[in-house]
Amino acid sequence: MKAFNDLADFSTEELEALLALAGRLDERPEPTALRGKVLSLLFLSPSLRTLASFQAAMTRLGGGSFVISPDMSIHGLETRPGIVMDGAAAEHIREAVPVIASYGDAIGIRAFAERKNLDRDLADAEFESLVELVDTPYINMESAIGHPCQNLADWKTLDDYDIPANGGKFVLSWAYHPKALPLAVPASTLYTAARRGMDVTVLRPEGFELPEPVTTKAKSAAEASGGSITETDDRVAAMQDAHVIYAKSWASTRHYGDRLNDQELRNALDDWCVDEPWFDNARKDCRFMHCLPVRRGVVVSEAVLDGPRSIVIHEARNRMLAQMAVLHQMLGAES
Amino acid sequence: MKAFNDLADFSTEELEALLALAGRLDERPEPTALRGKVLSLLFLSPSLRTLASFQAAMTRLGGGSFVISPDMSIHGLETRPGIVMDGAAAEHIREAVPVIASYGDAIGIRAFAERKNLDRDLADAEFESLVELVDTPYINMESAIGHPCQNLADWKTLDDYDIPANGGKFVLSWAYHPKALPLAVPASTLYTAARRGMDVTVLRPEGFELPEPVTTKAKSAAEASGGSITETDDRVAAMQDAHVIYAKSWASTRHYGDRLNDQELRNALDDWCVDEPWFDNARKDCRFMHCLPVRRGVVVSEAVLDGPRSIVIHEARNRMLAQMAVLHQMLGAES
Amino acid sequence: MKAFNDLADFSTEELEALLALAGRLDERPEPTALRGKVLSLLFLSPSLRTLASFQAAMTRLGGGSFVISPDMSIHGLETRPGIVMDGAAAEHIREAVPVIASYGDAIGIRAFAERKNLDRDLADAEFESLVELVDTPYINMESAIGHPCQNLADWKTLDDYDIPANGGKFVLSWAYHPKALPLAVPASTLYTAARRGMDVTVLRPEGFELPEPVTTKAKSAAEASGGSITETDDRVAAMQDAHVIYAKSWASTRHYGDRLNDQELRNALDDWCVDEPWFDNARKDCRFMHCLPVRRGVVVSEAVLDGPRSIVIHEARNRMLAQMAVLHQMLGAES
Repeated sequence: MKAFNDLADFSTEELEALLALAGRLDERPEPTALRGKVLSLLFLSPSLRTLASFQAAMTRLGGGSFVISPDMSIHGLETRPGIVMDGAAAEHIREAVPVIASYGDAIGIRAFAERKNLDRDLADAEFESLVELVDTPYINMESAIGHPCQNLADWKTLDDYDIPANGGKFVLSWAYHPKALPLAVPASTLYTAARRGMDVTVLRPEGFELPEPVTTKAKSAAEASGGSITETDDRVAAMQDAHVIYAKSWASTRHYGDRLNDQELRNALDDWCVDEPWFDNARKDCRFMHCLPVRRGVVVSEAVLDGPRSIVIHEARNRMLAQMAVLHQMLGAES
Repeated sequence: MKAFNDLADFSTEELEALLALAGRLDERPEPTALRGKVLSLLFLSPSLRTLASFQAAMTRLGGGSFVISPDMSIHGLETRPGIVMDGAAAEHIREAVPVIASYGDAIGIRAFAERKNLDRDLADAEFESLVELVDTPYINMESAIGHPCQNLADWKTLDDYDIPANGGKFVLSWAYHPKALPLAVPASTLYTAARRGMDVTVLRPEGFELPEPVTTKAKSAAEASGGSITETDDRVAAMQDAHVIYAKSWASTRHYGDRLNDQELRNALDDWCVDEPWFDNARKDCRFMHCLPVRRGVVVSEAVLDGPRSIVIHEARNRMLAQMAVLHQMLGAES
Repeated sequence: MKAFNDLADFSTEELEALLALAGRLDERPEPTALRGKVLSLLFLSPSLRTLASFQAAMTRLGGGSFVISPDMSIHGLETRPGIVMDGAAAEHIREAVPVIASYGDAIGIRAFAERKNLDRDLADAEFESLVELVDTPYINMESAIGHPCQNLADWKTLDDYDIPANGGKFVLSWAYHPKALPLAVPASTLYTAARRGMDVTVLRPEGFELPEPVTTKAKSAAEASGGSITETDDRVAAMQDAHVIYAKSWASTRHYGDRLNDQELRNALDDWCVDEPWFDNARKDCRFMHCLPVRRGVVVSEAVLDGPRSIVIHEARNRMLAQMAVLHQMLGAES
């Protein structure tokens, strides 16, 4: 495996093999599988789960990792192309990235969306410019538009809780958050649930419609897998008979990159906090998922988050297992 | 071993086994004992020795670790219960702690005393609220009232220097420090020396008496082990025939949580700096111990700290060995 | 090997063995060579390559490492001798360094030049005061006047690109940089190229002459190895038939420690940016080297840095291999 960037790059058989391997590595550890192997971890955006779970994953497979983030570097990293570097930054990403990559057998890179220009973020322009600098296999640890490690972990979580693929009803719901967050998780989660063959409803207020290329890609996956996609702002209709609600906030796509208008639209929507009444017409055992971090009392009520519907801790632990499977296939002897 | 939180939780045989194992692992390394095992390290308070020695300990046993501290997280960690998270913090400890724990086979947690309410700190309320969130075995890396890794290392240090258990005279002395420091080390050190059967004198100025529950617990241990406890502000009497002085500053218990009155009381006590004249009537080879970090010229004179009495570096190295023994018993095959 | 501090401490046979070992470890990994071994990494100055490459090196050899930098410690580290520590710093380097060292089988230490007093920096006074506190083997990860890991990596790089030892022409060129940088790299690079037997030209503007002890040491090495050293400010003469140009900025030695006069002298020299016309009379395949980080458009043009002359990424990767060889000899079974 040369890259783990998007579940769309893998056949269904390949995805099933990764999911099976993730489960097997949980039950039967392989503490020498990646002996002497090194994973470089480059964080251009903050992290907790990804930072911890990748380090743990490499240790469990007998290898190791190192972490670089710009605050560790000499006066930060310059990212702008073609610049005369007579300011504060002493190193350019064009040297830093290939050098960091050269110390590892693979590299994980995180770079959140710039959230200025929607087309640029949809094209994953910054992440693509970074991986172009790398000769080793690489892993997307969340880019402007993708979060494949989260997606694979979520797929495993749905399997673990016996939530049906075909016929399973998956609600991807926008939720209130004081900030305009990236599209990476909602866009790639929509694709993932559709790819799994689920009937997906995107529940969001007006002004927060998912971009057309995101929906088109997911619809194409749904058609191939026997799933479906609908989009609505009608909470009651969306939650009818739902097996799972996946909450996530994201920036207004109507006002993408326009902080003031996004804020004005968002401010009126603080009742979009997932709470027990949302589940009135859902399936009785409807589950609550979220990629974390999550703001309590803002995105979701304490009652839901601390109650039996919530499977967010299991979901977060699956990050480690999913990544172990990816690393094993990318760096293992049989790769 | 499900928890390493307090030496009082262990029988004398269990403590002796840990001490013996610490010595054995120093002489005969076991570089594959914890192969593929992961220790999660969560620091809610600063660290140098603990940070370094736990990472080194896991490596020496063939496993690994990862470190999370709030400054790495996304906008810090919220710790208050029941709060609506519409401020700066994007993640609550109620998710962060179980997630971090889920990536490891055990977790070490450090959370210093809040130093606002004495009863709450004596009950170790914050640490208890954190470990309640954890399903894995856990290690106390210093809480409001305990520092068992330091205690076990100190016990080993006393053994290494052939300082007698029964009949050995141990002076736990308050020392000047510009800040009101926690009670964790003095409280748990008093217990440890008493548990070892030593004759312990607590030497402290008025207003810095150790809290009654701390003394009562230690007295009970002393009775069982053949030791004794006295408390005094008479330096000459305290140091008479001492085998070892263990210096440590702590907050005024009379003015606990009252910064101004603590400061006023403390300001007049800057002659409580351990210096060579203190040892005039001690045993000739009386040792100086301190858990570090220590302020030179403030807590102890350079002459004492750099002289032959000081065994603080040996003591600090024993942190690693003590922790290796704990980790080996907690995570090893025979556990 | 008890110390890796200066290539001058090693015989030619020893250096050749290290270089051969570095190449061998690249081709034939030894993922259990340093099983259970720990490298302590103490950074008193910032780092990217050194931080990453040492961690990767230890993992590749089956051991591990931990990192301490002052920003992790409790309120920073005090370095001044004989001070009464009643200020912000809670720990002195006199405890911190031996403690950190005691957790490892070897320690790497980085402490850049103070750049106040030239004689003190030439004597490597601060680094020497630090390693005096250490009982374990140690590695210089860049001190005031030395950078032996870079030197060994550079030697390997020259070998890898078949640049001749005797008869090879090596230009060490000053370059413009907005800050007064240390002498460690130019001083130790001059020695290294001379020791390798190359004909070395130091190309620098007036006021930036290398200090006499640096040149004398290198000349002595050149005499023994069949190389030579000249110093000039004539770019055309210097570049004549050059095999390689090694660019690096450094502080004005005429105004060492005098920021204002250094700045005034330096400001007029921003045309010292290595660019394609510099190579007009060099060998056609003349290479460009730099230890990184490098400021694009300031120290070197984008055209040169991104073009076929530049071997800086290969050079940076050799840091890891060179350090693996040092660690293998220092900590391996046969040491």
